[in-house]
Amino acid sequence: MGGDHAPDVVVEGVQLAHVRLPDVRYLLFGDEQRINPLLERFPEVKPFVEVRHTDQVIGGNDKPGQVLRSGRQSSMWLAVKSVSDGDAHGVVSAGNTGALMAVSKFILRMVPGIDRPAIAGFYPTERGESVMLDLGANVVCDANNLVEFAIMGEVFARLVLGVQEPTVGLLNVGSEELKGNDAVRGAAATLKNGHLALKFYGFIEGNDITKGTVDVVVSDGFSGNIALKAMEGTAKLYVRFLRQAFSSSLLAKIAYLLARPALNKVKMRTDPRRYNGAMLLGLNGITVKSHGGTDAEGFANAIGVAVDLVKQGFNDRIKEELLALRSQAAAS
Amino acid sequence: MGGDHAPDVVVEGVQLAHVRLPDVRYLLFGDEQRINPLLERFPEVKPFVEVRHTDQVIGGNDKPGQVLRSGRQSSMWLAVKSVSDGDAHGVVSAGNTGALMAVSKFILRMVPGIDRPAIAGFYPTERGESVMLDLGANVVCDANNLVEFAIMGEVFARLVLGVQEPTVGLLNVGSEELKGNDAVRGAAATLKNGHLALKFYGFIEGNDITKGTVDVVVSDGFSGNIALKAMEGTAKLYVRFLRQAFSSSLLAKIAYLLARPALNKVKMRTDPRRYNGAMLLGLNGITVKSHGGTDAEGFANAIGVAVDLVKQGFNDRIKEELLALRSQAAAS
Repeated sequence: MGGDHAPDVVVEGVQLAHVRLPDVRYLLFGDEQRINPLLERFPEVKPFVEVRHTDQVIGGNDKPGQVLRSGRQSSMWLAVKSVSDGDAHGVVSAGNTGALMAVSKFILRMVPGIDRPAIAGFYPTERGESVMLDLGANVVCDANNLVEFAIMGEVFARLVLGVQEPTVGLLNVGSEELKGNDAVRGAAATLKNGHLALKFYGFIEGNDITKGTVDVVVSDGFSGNIALKAMEGTAKLYVRFLRQAFSSSLLAKIAYLLARPALNKVKMRTDPRRYNGAMLLGLNGITVKSHGGTDAEGFANAIGVAVDLVKQGFNDRIKEELLALRSQAAAS
Repeated sequence: MGGDHAPDVVVEGVQLAHVRLPDVRYLLFGDEQRINPLLERFPEVKPFVEVRHTDQVIGGNDKPGQVLRSGRQSSMWLAVKSVSDGDAHGVVSAGNTGALMAVSKFILRMVPGIDRPAIAGFYPTERGESVMLDLGANVVCDANNLVEFAIMGEVFARLVLGVQEPTVGLLNVGSEELKGNDAVRGAAATLKNGHLALKFYGFIEGNDITKGTVDVVVSDGFSGNIALKAMEGTAKLYVRFLRQAFSSSLLAKIAYLLARPALNKVKMRTDPRRYNGAMLLGLNGITVKSHGGTDAEGFANAIGVAVDLVKQGFNDRIKEELLALRSQAAAS
């Protein structure tokens, strides 16, 4: 029931995902009087869907604390709980991010050895696609948090993006060793010492994010969130400037008709729906957050991310990495 | 002598600036054997230029501390010193940013009442142009630093962008009062209490930067630097995707020819040369940093920024604002 266009977008997204991933089954939590009529429109997906009714919905402005106290019959709560109950392998929600994080942390708990959860997302680069984390779960981070993000991001890039040996970079204001704050310098020292089975590139700068200098961009949640949203804003600015330029004269309008296939190609490559599905990493269960404003296509992609993570045993891989890290550190 | 293409770009930039601002005179510091032949090509600007010879040049990788110890005969040092000596009203350099900041702080000192200098730059938005600071001078900032940046940025927007009553926003990960770290929350509390003669909008997010939600974006130097470079990177990604799309087929190439005027319009609106000239704010003297990789057009724009700031008495206005702030705070 979360997001701007629920439950319509969710049900249509399930239908789209079903076409791509025919072996996946769905539990939908929410108002059955609104969900069932939508399902009637997609008879082929109905056998794969079970609706579990609840009236309570978490609002976009509900505070996490309030949700923890009085949101236990909400669609979000019940959906996350279905994962800890073993009824579902993972959960996808387009609802309130802060609430989803709090509820997931409360119900699923953290992966042992990970202190703080992180939000990871992927995005287009000059080289292909990369993943960035944290995108806003942790406003203040220490060196240890950043190292954990690096481990989780590296596994994410391998399993979701399919990169064999992902490179990891720490987002900073310069590439020299002395640059930055204590957290990034401390994290760099740990990542460089070689105990971890990951390819640490070193510090990167803001322009390296879209350059694709590394496969995994590690940042605190404050700068990471600001950088990602600044990138989204710049993309919007470009689209707006292009639209204005192509409607500024009759000649420009004619040129637009001819240029449309090329422009559509660019639009497709930068389509935010393709990059929908931010993963809440570090939780003892798969939780994927869809953009609240996405459409069915975007929601289906978020489902795809969750299915990838489940099928590839994301959390088991994280645990193995942490174990390896600890035994290497102990042996050294 | 600083930047990637000195002294050529500097001399040509002076020539371009001279056409636009015929009453400005120039002191050029550097290797006269390289500068004088370049000047020969521009006889009309020669009477406005005095070359002061020095052999020493600060390199792009020289550490600020090292420059302070042994760079006192460098072109950068002598140029900044000409401001404190009263020979020049302001200095423009395309050299090493860290060194320029250190040398300027050492020679010019801070404006009384300002704790830390900030780097400010302007950029295109959906509404026009806005200014953002700090872009990297201060990796760690407290609430007080951010308030000072707000004051300086507001004056900058009035004098350089010509905005009558600039609005000021604090860059954060959300717009709610409780979001963010101690620094932004503390700064918001001070900016909101009304002692300052500036229009405080509140918190803004990364996508508000290019939306033009506010005229002045205030940030710590870590996030501000990362956000600005992430924006530059995204713009480059767009240009690259457009170029690839328009060369992907014969039809696309033909479409490009027709679309070129429209595309050039977008290029012009987002031309980094138009936004060249970052101001080092808070120093007791006008110091403008040009991008190291810019061309003559970009360098001329940086000169234009410096001239604006000098003519409008930027530092006197900052001092007035600080005085007003203090007397208002004392009276309350």
